[in-house]
Amino acid sequence: MKQYITEHQSPYLDLSAEVTEILFKGKSAFQDIVVADSKEYGRMLMLDGVFQTSDKDEFTYHENIVHIPVFLHPNPKNILIIGGGDGGAAREAVRHPEVEHVTMVDIDGKVVELSKRYFPKIAAAMLENNPKLTVKIGDGIAFMKEAEDFYDVIIVDCSDPVGPGEGLFTYEFYKDTFKALKKDGIFVQQTESPFMHRRLVKEVFDAVGRIFPVTRLYTAFIPLYPTGMHCFTLGSKKYDPLTWEPNRKRSFSTQYYNEGIQKSAFVLPNFVKNLLYGDAER
Amino acid sequence: MKQYITEHQSPYLDLSAEVTEILFKGKSAFQDIVVADSKEYGRMLMLDGVFQTSDKDEFTYHENIVHIPVFLHPNPKNILIIGGGDGGAAREAVRHPEVEHVTMVDIDGKVVELSKRYFPKIAAAMLENNPKLTVKIGDGIAFMKEAEDFYDVIIVDCSDPVGPGEGLFTYEFYKDTFKALKKDGIFVQQTESPFMHRRLVKEVFDAVGRIFPVTRLYTAFIPLYPTGMHCFTLGSKKYDPLTWEPNRKRSFSTQYYNEGIQKSAFVLPNFVKNLLYGDAER
Repeated sequence: MKQYITEHQSPYLDLSAEVTEILFKGKSAFQDIVVADSKEYGRMLMLDGVFQTSDKDEFTYHENIVHIPVFLHPNPKNILIIGGGDGGAAREAVRHPEVEHVTMVDIDGKVVELSKRYFPKIAAAMLENNPKLTVKIGDGIAFMKEAEDFYDVIIVDCSDPVGPGEGLFTYEFYKDTFKALKKDGIFVQQTESPFMHRRLVKEVFDAVGRIFPVTRLYTAFIPLYPTGMHCFTLGSKKYDPLTWEPNRKRSFSTQYYNEGIQKSAFVLPNFVKNLLYGDAER
Repeated sequence: MKQYITEHQSPYLDLSAEVTEILFKGKSAFQDIVVADSKEYGRMLMLDGVFQTSDKDEFTYHENIVHIPVFLHPNPKNILIIGGGDGGAAREAVRHPEVEHVTMVDIDGKVVELSKRYFPKIAAAMLENNPKLTVKIGDGIAFMKEAEDFYDVIIVDCSDPVGPGEGLFTYEFYKDTFKALKKDGIFVQQTESPFMHRRLVKEVFDAVGRIFPVTRLYTAFIPLYPTGMHCFTLGSKKYDPLTWEPNRKRSFSTQYYNEGIQKSAFVLPNFVKNLLYGDAER
């Protein structure tokens, strides 16, 4: 008898993965959590019914959400990660020699605990107690309100805008983020699929655009996520990804990211340009 | 009671779409065919249990398989499409004013007939009896054996390499394709997901590479296909996509394609470079 775990990618579309073992199934104070070993994607993490990451494809997400903003910044010393409880974004951020400190604030300590236990590769920087990394369990929205003129890059590695992630998709939060950044700081947030979640993508892009002088969208292939086409919204006080040129040598190897990707990720299909700008050919 | 149609994207991963109506379900001489109206993707075509296209996302596939090779060629007059029975590739090919004639050869007349009936938008060029277009029902492999030094661009818009599509993924077929092309001709074939179908992608790339002086892989977001990350293998006798510069003005609007995509589609993530070349950083 085969056993599956299923994400309702939309009310009308289901993705089901055959699993050999459910390793954890329970509730934290914030969400339902499932950890399972699947045949296609290896070990998978599911929160509130949504696939978050897998051992097989996690690099596509974590490299893109981290390396693109961090390489855009010529001198990234202090990084803040909101969410990212699995530790994958932190793992990528500490690899940059220029980065002196990474603060990660996730609201759900249970996700951090389970990731350390079941996803040692993803949680590597947390498990090795990397000296650059501080993990805080707490409310990212409240944390952001207190921060001012301190971070070079802020990465919002959150779940969907329902449940605990909801407050991370608001104009108020983006204003606090702007305040928390240094005068040449960069903000990035995962913002779902520009094919499937058009309204969210447009709303976030417009909200960030009202606050940051430079606002850009970039895309990446994330096989496990709905449509496989995922986007990230980037707000920048100074540096523009469209005029980026390599400003330092990359000292570590990657599975997805390279200097070509740093540029091509910002080249958008016309239907995405139409969504953002109302005019594809600009 | 909800009704679904399901593709087994792999033996371990299922994508299920809720449908409101099954419009056609039957067998041709070559394959099982389903046409259904789904809530997420609109009308969908399924062959041998695999989603081929949908009204909602078809432009992502048809624009990428056609416009990238055709714009790479500075003077594309004669186009051959092998497969492509739904008519979407033909529709895009005839939009190029430089293109004088498009020959489409699909083995399954039933697919052509059903597409004209149920997918009028995709089948538009066939339905309007576009004077540039000739549709032949027949064996693409046999057709290719007869052709010599005639086509500027050959597009292999086939299903997966099982069933009727199988013979289209062989060294012999690629040799015949080379022969059928003019001395500066370009060949392109859909070659599945470089994340999920790694072995196929590598085998085709190596086979094409043994025949064509320029062999390149490009990717596109195709939301309905497994992983959403799809690739196309391009073999060229002369023109190299990596040094492409616009050689004529595009005279029609597109939903996906633009001149930035023409270049960025060939920028590959490191795991794809590793697969093709064994060295990501070349």
